[in-house]
Amino acid sequence: MKKILILGSTGSIGTQTLDVIRENKNLFTVVGLVCGSSVELLKKQIEEFQPKVAGIFNEKIKIQTNTKTKIYYGEKEIIKLIKETDCDLIVVAITGAAGLKPALAAVQSGKDVALATKEVMVLAGEQFVHEIKKRKLELFPIDSEHSAIWQSLRSGSYKEIEKIFLTCSGGPFKKKKAEDLRNITPTQALGHPTWKMGKKITIDSSTLMNKGFEVIEAKWLFDVPTKNIEVVIHPQSILHSAIMFIDGSVIGQMSLPDMRMPIQYALTYPSRIKNKLPRLSLTDLENLTFYKPDLKTFPCLSYAYEAIEKGGTMPTVLNAADEIAVNLFLNNKIKFLNIPKLIKKTMENHKIVKSPDFDDILKVDSWARLEALKLYENCR
Amino acid sequence: MKKILILGSTGSIGTQTLDVIRENKNLFTVVGLVCGSSVELLKKQIEEFQPKVAGIFNEKIKIQTNTKTKIYYGEKEIIKLIKETDCDLIVVAITGAAGLKPALAAVQSGKDVALATKEVMVLAGEQFVHEIKKRKLELFPIDSEHSAIWQSLRSGSYKEIEKIFLTCSGGPFKKKKAEDLRNITPTQALGHPTWKMGKKITIDSSTLMNKGFEVIEAKWLFDVPTKNIEVVIHPQSILHSAIMFIDGSVIGQMSLPDMRMPIQYALTYPSRIKNKLPRLSLTDLENLTFYKPDLKTFPCLSYAYEAIEKGGTMPTVLNAADEIAVNLFLNNKIKFLNIPKLIKKTMENHKIVKSPDFDDILKVDSWARLEALKLYENCR
Repeated sequence: MKKILILGSTGSIGTQTLDVIRENKNLFTVVGLVCGSSVELLKKQIEEFQPKVAGIFNEKIKIQTNTKTKIYYGEKEIIKLIKETDCDLIVVAITGAAGLKPALAAVQSGKDVALATKEVMVLAGEQFVHEIKKRKLELFPIDSEHSAIWQSLRSGSYKEIEKIFLTCSGGPFKKKKAEDLRNITPTQALGHPTWKMGKKITIDSSTLMNKGFEVIEAKWLFDVPTKNIEVVIHPQSILHSAIMFIDGSVIGQMSLPDMRMPIQYALTYPSRIKNKLPRLSLTDLENLTFYKPDLKTFPCLSYAYEAIEKGGTMPTVLNAADEIAVNLFLNNKIKFLNIPKLIKKTMENHKIVKSPDFDDILKVDSWARLEALKLYENCR
Repeated sequence: MKKILILGSTGSIGTQTLDVIRENKNLFTVVGLVCGSSVELLKKQIEEFQPKVAGIFNEKIKIQTNTKTKIYYGEKEIIKLIKETDCDLIVVAITGAAGLKPALAAVQSGKDVALATKEVMVLAGEQFVHEIKKRKLELFPIDSEHSAIWQSLRSGSYKEIEKIFLTCSGGPFKKKKAEDLRNITPTQALGHPTWKMGKKITIDSSTLMNKGFEVIEAKWLFDVPTKNIEVVIHPQSILHSAIMFIDGSVIGQMSLPDMRMPIQYALTYPSRIKNKLPRLSLTDLENLTFYKPDLKTFPCLSYAYEAIEKGGTMPTVLNAADEIAVNLFLNNKIKFLNIPKLIKKTMENHKIVKSPDFDDILKVDSWARLEALKLYENCR
């Protein structure tokens, strides 16, 4: 029986993780559930899974349940929960940079981590992987692309990777040009063609920033220089990514788009277990197509390559500025095309800290958020 | 230094195996070369690679070389060569059923085998795999499809296979109907769209019998019932086959069509080594398409499923009748559409031997050849 603690249990990945566990109660038990502020759903989850502990980041909301579950409030208490709860695996599925401290606490307490929060790898990939390796822990990626690469990697070794094909649906605006995107509304940007996801990541998919983050994530997870990571637009979202090994052989992972598949694999690795998820039929597919991304229309992807190349704290700035810009866009404060502009300006104003530690990263994260907001205020 | 003995060194797979070895002389040494009767090429190969031993199946041809290579003539001597030559790996790349006895001798002498001769698995897959397992030897598939499955299998285990997608270019006559195939000449049938191969296998590809053999081969290699092996026409020959695991995840292997890739993998397994073979570029591809095979126009594929379902010596008859029929077609003795007819009639006239040993198989092989010839003579 694998004991699972879920950070971000009420989000898209969190609820789908609970779907997988619900189907496999003989294998998994939920020992803890932590959410941001969606307490109504959390209460239902607590009643169903009866975990020993639960946590709510937003300290202002208190809840009552009919179970023996001990409730923790606020970040400090939740860090304590993470460190003290007996478990085999911590699923980190908190949206955005808020996931960094909890993810770090998970690793520091000696637990294996299944990671959905790609921002952890964008902000502090090098440092985080170092903490994992130092303790000989395992890091299981949940992102569908990184799960695909990780599954493909079993057919070779890290040293045998020649390049990575990181596939990308292209989002709702593929094949559009900048002039078509001028008056895009949040509702339009939230209509992703193939994947059902949270709001932040859906907007990031529409700007290709999400793919930029994934390039950075892949670099740290698989120890591959970004010049060997090629983003390929693949509108059907069937091939979830692939590795070309040094002998020229390309191994890739395919399925219908369903996050429960990579989530389940992260929970059961290295085994695979049967499930009832819809199956891919090759002969029912429309054509599979692949083309190069349009970096002129979607510059966020270039900014990600640029940020990781400049290194140090620049990826932290990329992520922070993006969180602010997306939030402003979702609240109708800035236009779609101003998301990349705001990110670019914030990056331009940043003085890189080389070889940062976690404290430097958190400081720069705060700086970049303020800077992005300041830039927005000045331009109004 | 891996010591390699090649059976069938002058054929398509044999010469490409020598290409791979030539590029990696620091890793491999050729200790023996055996051919059927292409002695001019064999002499050149002997002079280049200076093996300790060489063999010619056709006893009537004697050769002289400037090397210290000891030459063996005829099947009996070659079986002795196989048993006595010190080597780490025997590449079995003899066309047709003639490969069975040498392949068996290889295994009985305790050597790992890299197998290109799929007829060995069609005639005696169960028995051959049993001999391999009994001795805890390794069997490395060289067929591009089976290499693809074998490479994909590393991402899971035998027990985790739910189904196999066995891809097929469709051959030169894909999308044709029977009436279009009435007057096909051997030259037309030898024009394969994506793979360069020997004559026999190229005709087998045009009738889809080759794919039928591969279904049988996959069944024994990967211990999967044939009902879980789906043949999928994929005209671009980029995805060389794939496994769907029990969690619904599909792992597949892709590359440009080049046999040197699976050959090299069989020689270097479990490692992969760098090479200069042309690389797949996903964004340079035309669309990848997949559709169901047309069993009415290409009944040979159904006969293969039928033969393996009936079991015993029926697959032996399938193979023997096919060798005769293809030979008659190549010599302009029968028409293209009579290849499946001759095979079907021979199968209908066969009384199955259940649980055959190797002697039974060889006897039935001879019977089926005579029967197919008799049926041909009677119909002239």
